[in-house]
Amino acid sequence: MYKQEILEAHELIQPYIHCTPVLTSSAIDEMIGCEIYFKCENFQKMGAFKMRGATHAILKLSETERQQGVVTHSSGNMAQAVSLAAQRLSIPAYIVMPENAPQAKKDAVRGYGGIITEVESTIEARQAEADRIVREKSSTMIHPSNDLNVILGQGTAAIELFRDYSDLDYIAVPVGGGGLLAGTAIAAHHFGEHCNTIGGEPMAADDAYRSMQTGQIENNESSETIADGLRTHLGDINFPIIQKYVEEIIRVEEAEIISAMRLIWERMKIIIEPSCAVPLAAIARQRNKFENKKVGIILSGGNVDLAKLPF
Amino acid sequence: MYKQEILEAHELIQPYIHCTPVLTSSAIDEMIGCEIYFKCENFQKMGAFKMRGATHAILKLSETERQQGVVTHSSGNMAQAVSLAAQRLSIPAYIVMPENAPQAKKDAVRGYGGIITEVESTIEARQAEADRIVREKSSTMIHPSNDLNVILGQGTAAIELFRDYSDLDYIAVPVGGGGLLAGTAIAAHHFGEHCNTIGGEPMAADDAYRSMQTGQIENNESSETIADGLRTHLGDINFPIIQKYVEEIIRVEEAEIISAMRLIWERMKIIIEPSCAVPLAAIARQRNKFENKKVGIILSGGNVDLAKLPF
Repeated sequence: MYKQEILEAHELIQPYIHCTPVLTSSAIDEMIGCEIYFKCENFQKMGAFKMRGATHAILKLSETERQQGVVTHSSGNMAQAVSLAAQRLSIPAYIVMPENAPQAKKDAVRGYGGIITEVESTIEARQAEADRIVREKSSTMIHPSNDLNVILGQGTAAIELFRDYSDLDYIAVPVGGGGLLAGTAIAAHHFGEHCNTIGGEPMAADDAYRSMQTGQIENNESSETIADGLRTHLGDINFPIIQKYVEEIIRVEEAEIISAMRLIWERMKIIIEPSCAVPLAAIARQRNKFENKKVGIILSGGNVDLAKLPF
Repeated sequence: MYKQEILEAHELIQPYIHCTPVLTSSAIDEMIGCEIYFKCENFQKMGAFKMRGATHAILKLSETERQQGVVTHSSGNMAQAVSLAAQRLSIPAYIVMPENAPQAKKDAVRGYGGIITEVESTIEARQAEADRIVREKSSTMIHPSNDLNVILGQGTAAIELFRDYSDLDYIAVPVGGGGLLAGTAIAAHHFGEHCNTIGGEPMAADDAYRSMQTGQIENNESSETIADGLRTHLGDINFPIIQKYVEEIIRVEEAEIISAMRLIWERMKIIIEPSCAVPLAAIARQRNKFENKKVGIILSGGNVDLAKLPF
């Protein structure tokens, strides 16, 4: 399923994204007891894999649709990704943000040319404002994770990893809204020789884990995790793909996330955001399962507030 | 001068070091107005270029000398570099450290197999203890910067950069003890097509700048800079090389160092130590000089105390 579509997505977005490097660390391999290949999407344009999905979704629009612009509501990486992808294609991007979003994030979105509308910080207010823009400007809504073109775009990072390392035993990514996990699982199914896909998720926002248990999309009653990119829940487009292709969701404690983040900062000298550390925390937590295996990890992003580090 | 010797140094150390990647940032290029190629020695083994010089100095010892071990006194990267290089070659490394050195640094040295002797925190006490070890164990002293084999080893990072970018107009490195600057200048002279070498130095420890003015090795009366790797002064072996081959030493303010460090962290998502940010601060300070030029920067190291960040 989607083999041809994901290859076409990769072909299409290539001029607009970086083919990010793959790094390894013998110190981390030794500590954890497996061979890890880190695909560095923290070095992607605007600092996260979201650039891939946003670019793909916009490129799939018709000429008329493009002229009418795109809309998203987000206070995180997707706001920046949609803004930058739209800027590269010279179309307007309307970004609905909560009025209490950090100034630095608003500045980043404006820096990439995004047109911000500020609303109250409730999901209803954000959705209502996005709907209004869609209605009034005939713009296209781009959902951060529950959109097939976004999912296929996110999966292209794994395609690049499998081109160099087709014999990975596992590939692990963080799961929030489920776009990266679903896209990666599609890529692993088609382009890995024998690769199982693993999702890493904070205990404190373990909706995807519970969804896999119950067979229906679960929500988080609360989501107090440092991995702020992973507080959202799955959607009806990505959940069936995840059910079909993902082997397991591994949940991790907050302290494990911080410790994995610190390990990557100190040993690899690269900057990753807390959400990005979750797959390594998951591998470390279940190290018996991964012993002596070849494991790919998508380092999802590096946009972190340096004034609010957990160490 | 030293063309053959530096090529041999590179050949010799290659099995023991990483050929580190070269990164670029279109955002930083645009802000500063030139094309910068960052040679990432922060990704080097033990996190700094010092691994190159330490490895080369040890490899040049005779079999008998190796068996009697090596000595250095340092509380910084050279202590770790000598320890790790010696460990790789299975010889003892005696490291003289001030008793008040941070526990993390002592742990790192021990982690690489270094044998620590703690002494009072004066230069006399450290030198006396190093001399005692040299006398009693017939070990060889390895100076962190004023040793020709160390200098040639440090210059090999630039050789790798010129292999890919032989047409750089400038190459910029930080100057502390002068080993990296002298080695880089030798490499630029022989392997750059038309490349001038620039040293970056904190105003607060500007001994190298003053040494170039007066023609003799100057000291720092005080050296209160965040760039803790650059507090030392030049030596009689590297100074003549620097006089001969270095175009200019550019001095920068503390705020400029912090701002350049932050720029690299935020835009490139990589971790560098404060000393490592000094060349970019120098380029930014004199941006007219470098306008539209191709500039190489050796990112010297990434060993930073995450609990003591300046931002």
